[in-house]
Amino acid sequence: MLGEMLENVRKNTPLIHNITNYVTVNDCANILLACGGSPIMSDEEEEVCDITTICGGLNINMGTLNTRTITSMLKAGKRANELDHPVIFDPVGAGASALRTETAKKLMEEVHFSVIRGNISEIKTLALGSGTTKGVDADIADKVTEDKLDEVVAFAKKFSKETNAVVAITGAIDIVADSKKAYCIRNGHPMMSSITGTGCQLSAMTAAFITANKENMLEAVAASVCTMGYAGEIAHKRLTPKDGNSSYRNYIIDAVYNMTPEMLEDGAKYEVR
Amino acid sequence: MLGEMLENVRKNTPLIHNITNYVTVNDCANILLACGGSPIMSDEEEEVCDITTICGGLNINMGTLNTRTITSMLKAGKRANELDHPVIFDPVGAGASALRTETAKKLMEEVHFSVIRGNISEIKTLALGSGTTKGVDADIADKVTEDKLDEVVAFAKKFSKETNAVVAITGAIDIVADSKKAYCIRNGHPMMSSITGTGCQLSAMTAAFITANKENMLEAVAASVCTMGYAGEIAHKRLTPKDGNSSYRNYIIDAVYNMTPEMLEDGAKYEVR
Amino acid sequence: MLGEMLENVRKNTPLIHNITNYVTVNDCANILLACGGSPIMSDEEEEVCDITTICGGLNINMGTLNTRTITSMLKAGKRANELDHPVIFDPVGAGASALRTETAKKLMEEVHFSVIRGNISEIKTLALGSGTTKGVDADIADKVTEDKLDEVVAFAKKFSKETNAVVAITGAIDIVADSKKAYCIRNGHPMMSSITGTGCQLSAMTAAFITANKENMLEAVAASVCTMGYAGEIAHKRLTPKDGNSSYRNYIIDAVYNMTPEMLEDGAKYEVR
Repeated sequence: MLGEMLENVRKNTPLIHNITNYVTVNDCANILLACGGSPIMSDEEEEVCDITTICGGLNINMGTLNTRTITSMLKAGKRANELDHPVIFDPVGAGASALRTETAKKLMEEVHFSVIRGNISEIKTLALGSGTTKGVDADIADKVTEDKLDEVVAFAKKFSKETNAVVAITGAIDIVADSKKAYCIRNGHPMMSSITGTGCQLSAMTAAFITANKENMLEAVAASVCTMGYAGEIAHKRLTPKDGNSSYRNYIIDAVYNMTPEMLEDGAKYEVR
Repeated sequence: MLGEMLENVRKNTPLIHNITNYVTVNDCANILLACGGSPIMSDEEEEVCDITTICGGLNINMGTLNTRTITSMLKAGKRANELDHPVIFDPVGAGASALRTETAKKLMEEVHFSVIRGNISEIKTLALGSGTTKGVDADIADKVTEDKLDEVVAFAKKFSKETNAVVAITGAIDIVADSKKAYCIRNGHPMMSSITGTGCQLSAMTAAFITANKENMLEAVAASVCTMGYAGEIAHKRLTPKDGNSSYRNYIIDAVYNMTPEMLEDGAKYEVR
Repeated sequence: MLGEMLENVRKNTPLIHNITNYVTVNDCANILLACGGSPIMSDEEEEVCDITTICGGLNINMGTLNTRTITSMLKAGKRANELDHPVIFDPVGAGASALRTETAKKLMEEVHFSVIRGNISEIKTLALGSGTTKGVDADIADKVTEDKLDEVVAFAKKFSKETNAVVAITGAIDIVADSKKAYCIRNGHPMMSSITGTGCQLSAMTAAFITANKENMLEAVAASVCTMGYAGEIAHKRLTPKDGNSSYRNYIIDAVYNMTPEMLEDGAKYEVR
């Protein structure tokens, strides 16, 4: 099932419009190519509607939010909605500044997102209107642990119902939920948090997965999250004693490039709750 | 001959002013250093003339075009023309949005470019005023194949005559032409298209080649295109089964760093038509 | 002593606000993670005060200066001063354009910097009000050689006294000085200058070192400079014949990731003058 999702990305080469931050944008482009998608980046208000129109899906990421691009995000999001293109929202740092929190709220009001992906602190900020984020990382108090899992699953399903979006909360355990069903995913490696932008990369890749699998959004997101996590495991095994986070970054993207549907089926570790 | 072009880059360390996109800018800077040039990036209207003045050449790339930097491109381009500095234009995504198509047209009218480098869809957009581009990649219908080669060579020569620029159309076969002579280059590897920004990197590197070889622009561009393609071949041979597009990216820049004039002479695969 | 500085970074995970350039920003984020810090990037005027407030330290880098972000730099700098957060200034390209020279001057007037780090040409520009910079590299005439060392040390101490900042002048020999004491550091490798942004990376990392060692700024900066230089040596030893500047970039960040306090104590090469 998840393998098929990846296969569809490879088959359809979805073209993804990214309005994203300048920190991790190169890695986002390369991971999109690695999974079988095709990236285009544009955040200029005067052209975003044109670009959204020629693409199949849209990825909006607030990582280096600035007032110039907020309008671009709104315009592109609305255009994508008109065209029935899948749209993913990565609310990087929601809760870290008033501007980010308010912009996230505004985007949620004016654009329908197919998927919302963030860490637990960011998603809580969106759901509750306020939150504590440790910069762009989740607050330790919020961390998703086994004993809190059912609670977080219920929260994710509820938020999915309210937003009519697939909700992906990523961390040590990843939760991918719609209003009725949640995938709890245990792929990945703790060292992934020592690389900047694995979350951004995941969002960009997920845009390709949902665009190539519009009829199966929930499974598409789960497949993308498993692909990223499993790539993190494969890449970690490849590390030599001299390697660190920079080589690890390359190896993860390499592992996505070399991932086959069969490998993904074998390597995905999840349960449904 | 082509080796000499590379030798001159290494000898002169041309300082290149880049007004380029934020997706591939780091790779552009590193490949400029790899070939023997020196990069500086600046897109602020208030300083571009100062920066152009202290540099030897200018690279203008529309990859993440925004209205703020269009004026910067025009100012820097005109200043470079005044100083008789070589200027290269990479019309990324021309045809993908009205803003890009119109900006490309405006730049072509107000700045004299020494070299115009793009994929066939982008160059057709510049030449014919309209085009179909698949985002930032060439449209399949446009792809340069052996049986269309003479036709495309004639088109490139004609466009060179009209613009008084060396025209470089890159793809499976690369064409580098002035009004009378065209290099048809068969270096490179298909996997290069799985890395973001090999085109941007080539344009940045070409800026260094033409700046260090002002009297031999056509050969300088051919040498740069062969260097990139041959580096792509060398890097591809270096790939292990676990490597993917991210390691490949590093290996290509590494291969440019290690390229000698002799290697380039041996590895360049071209014919003149 | 220097090892303890690194240990404190690892222990405290200082969160660093970076207002920096889009060329080397990804490497800055990854080296911050490698040394044990945590990065957040934000240059939007409307949110920089919020971001500065939740962080422990601030890194201001002029690499791709634009008029929109100058106000952000001033606001964030003043807010950091109010909160008594360490602030580092990297005056990239001061002297290369009037805008950069004037902006550097304005920042120096309105913000108190804990550390100023640049190449000798940039620091001379700040100290003397004018300078000659070869783009973003130091002018050859300015290069710090053994016979000029005492002179440059005296200059650094004097400039430190005037600015009440630790002054770090990096090059073949690095000088880290306050008004009374100067570390002359002989770590590093000439090939580091073939990578874009090793200076930017050093500044970002230094922000983490001073934030985790507020009571020992001078030693913290010296420790950071030694860490970077020694990582450059370790990474250079790891190079294979096919590697070039791109792999070298990865290996340096990897080496920082793997650096232990003990290794740093052993590898640091400095004298105090």
